[in-house]
Amino acid sequence: MIQVAVNGYGTIGKRVADAVTAQPDMELVGVAKTSPNHEAETAVENGYPLYAAIEDRLDLFAEAGIEVAGLVEEMVEGADVVVDATPSGIGAENKALYEAHDTPALYQGGEDADLVDTSFNARGNYADAEGADHVRVVSCNTTGLSRLLAPLDEAYGVEKARVTLVRRGGDPGQTGRGPINDILPNPVTLPSHHGPDVNTIFPELNIDTLGMKVPATLMHTHSVNVTLDEVPDADDVRDLLAGEDRLFLIPPAYGIDGAGKLKEFAMDRGRPRADIWENCIWDESITVEDDDLYLFQAIHQESDVVPENVDAVRAVLGAADREESMARTDEAMGLGF
Amino acid sequence: MIQVAVNGYGTIGKRVADAVTAQPDMELVGVAKTSPNHEAETAVENGYPLYAAIEDRLDLFAEAGIEVAGLVEEMVEGADVVVDATPSGIGAENKALYEAHDTPALYQGGEDADLVDTSFNARGNYADAEGADHVRVVSCNTTGLSRLLAPLDEAYGVEKARVTLVRRGGDPGQTGRGPINDILPNPVTLPSHHGPDVNTIFPELNIDTLGMKVPATLMHTHSVNVTLDEVPDADDVRDLLAGEDRLFLIPPAYGIDGAGKLKEFAMDRGRPRADIWENCIWDESITVEDDDLYLFQAIHQESDVVPENVDAVRAVLGAADREESMARTDEAMGLGF
Repeated sequence: MIQVAVNGYGTIGKRVADAVTAQPDMELVGVAKTSPNHEAETAVENGYPLYAAIEDRLDLFAEAGIEVAGLVEEMVEGADVVVDATPSGIGAENKALYEAHDTPALYQGGEDADLVDTSFNARGNYADAEGADHVRVVSCNTTGLSRLLAPLDEAYGVEKARVTLVRRGGDPGQTGRGPINDILPNPVTLPSHHGPDVNTIFPELNIDTLGMKVPATLMHTHSVNVTLDEVPDADDVRDLLAGEDRLFLIPPAYGIDGAGKLKEFAMDRGRPRADIWENCIWDESITVEDDDLYLFQAIHQESDVVPENVDAVRAVLGAADREESMARTDEAMGLGF
Repeated sequence: MIQVAVNGYGTIGKRVADAVTAQPDMELVGVAKTSPNHEAETAVENGYPLYAAIEDRLDLFAEAGIEVAGLVEEMVEGADVVVDATPSGIGAENKALYEAHDTPALYQGGEDADLVDTSFNARGNYADAEGADHVRVVSCNTTGLSRLLAPLDEAYGVEKARVTLVRRGGDPGQTGRGPINDILPNPVTLPSHHGPDVNTIFPELNIDTLGMKVPATLMHTHSVNVTLDEVPDADDVRDLLAGEDRLFLIPPAYGIDGAGKLKEFAMDRGRPRADIWENCIWDESITVEDDDLYLFQAIHQESDVVPENVDAVRAVLGAADREESMARTDEAMGLGF
């Protein structure tokens, strides 16, 4: 059994802990948190050993009546791999800790690409992470783009990708963020960081990205254009994408017009936290004009990187190859609608 | 003096009436409305002769204490040109009225292109409307795209334009519209109507458009990509666009990040109804990668077609050529920041 520790127990960490627990070949050593809150309570409720990330704050947990299993160092020492799911920039500060314990570590997309040996997307470059000590699982949007562009590039060749990412202003719990009643070019300069980030997975891919921010919290939505070397018809593209496990083609008959109905659908299907781990591609939007492919896809910012983190655990340990790992992850988590 | 009548006194009609009144070579015959409301009260307040568009509803005006100058037929008879600013589809019903009085008519972008002799954008195809009896002033988004694409095509040649239009859900007064907290592909199929609509102005232009709808009311925002035949650098493009009277390049130093600040800026400058008649292009967003130009522009859906309606009046009567008309319109309305 692979011993996995999760350092940081927020939006990503709590989901990764659940996903690791669901894997038949993995065991959760524990989760570490800086301070007690409702998520810490739930970790204890779930029976997850809870470690304190900062020794000075041990008394806060005691005051909150939450029993901790120890300090984060002990958790790291007992793990084969650590998933660092701390806020952007904190992962970099934690690197020395993981190195001191000679424990391979996975970081999230908010860290700089040059912190690690390789950035990672399971479908895109699984093998690059095999045997690596420090791996960065790219962000939600880069994950969504990598999953889509990998099969397109393999099947037809991508001459150039141009993507406008219409991003949610904040997650549902981030009640202090904006914008309200506005459409912001964000960043107003080009490219947004997403294009260069995709290039950490596919260094040769020609991609330009533009970012915007709008008053929505549920999911991001991408307006995707890909100029292809070999031009298929739209039905070929549909068949290709339908054959990819982490791409969900929204059937026109479902009457799903946006993220609200997608989340409702996920809840009806019993998805934990209404998570949608798959790219959601509107089948009807898949269009080929001249040598240009167009489509819309929605990306659930809180959860699409979770299966990728699970795969990265196996990749760094050489515990399975790409196909085997993705299949195991998806089976255990229940991907696919 | 050109005698201009405005049939329909809502979002567009009231603005066109004001703009016509401001022109030194035009006189407002009057405005017609179907029923009394706050806008009818303001028309009277402004001293605009108010005509009833439907005879059966004359008593409604009487009940509201609003004096009408007569019926719409009398207004049309007294006009050299009628601007039809009625809701989509009603313009088509009114066509027979204008023909009966042998009065040239301008319609708005909500009408079908095949209702008229030509669609119209002042910068794009002014001359096509000269002497025409029925002319359609294209919609706000198509106007914004035509103003931008005309100079780019003339200077560099447009190989292909690809535009994602992130559209406001409704105008500030349309309180019953959505979406709330969502990002909707709209329409989910491609192309959106905007691309074909641009082709009513530039039949040969290669353009693909994608539409989305978001919870915002102030302005539309376009993510624009144009593949050019001859590739300039970004500063050349800036100079070219800065030389166009109805394009406003937002200076980076202004700190304007979206439509909220643009409208605030317009109010500070004393613009009537905070109208922004110009395309608002973020200077910083103008980027050239390979042979692709990218930029963001915001379009004020309630007002950018108003100067175009004024120009179309002169065009159908042969009262001025393009440069002369645009200059007169802009001078009288106060375009340019």
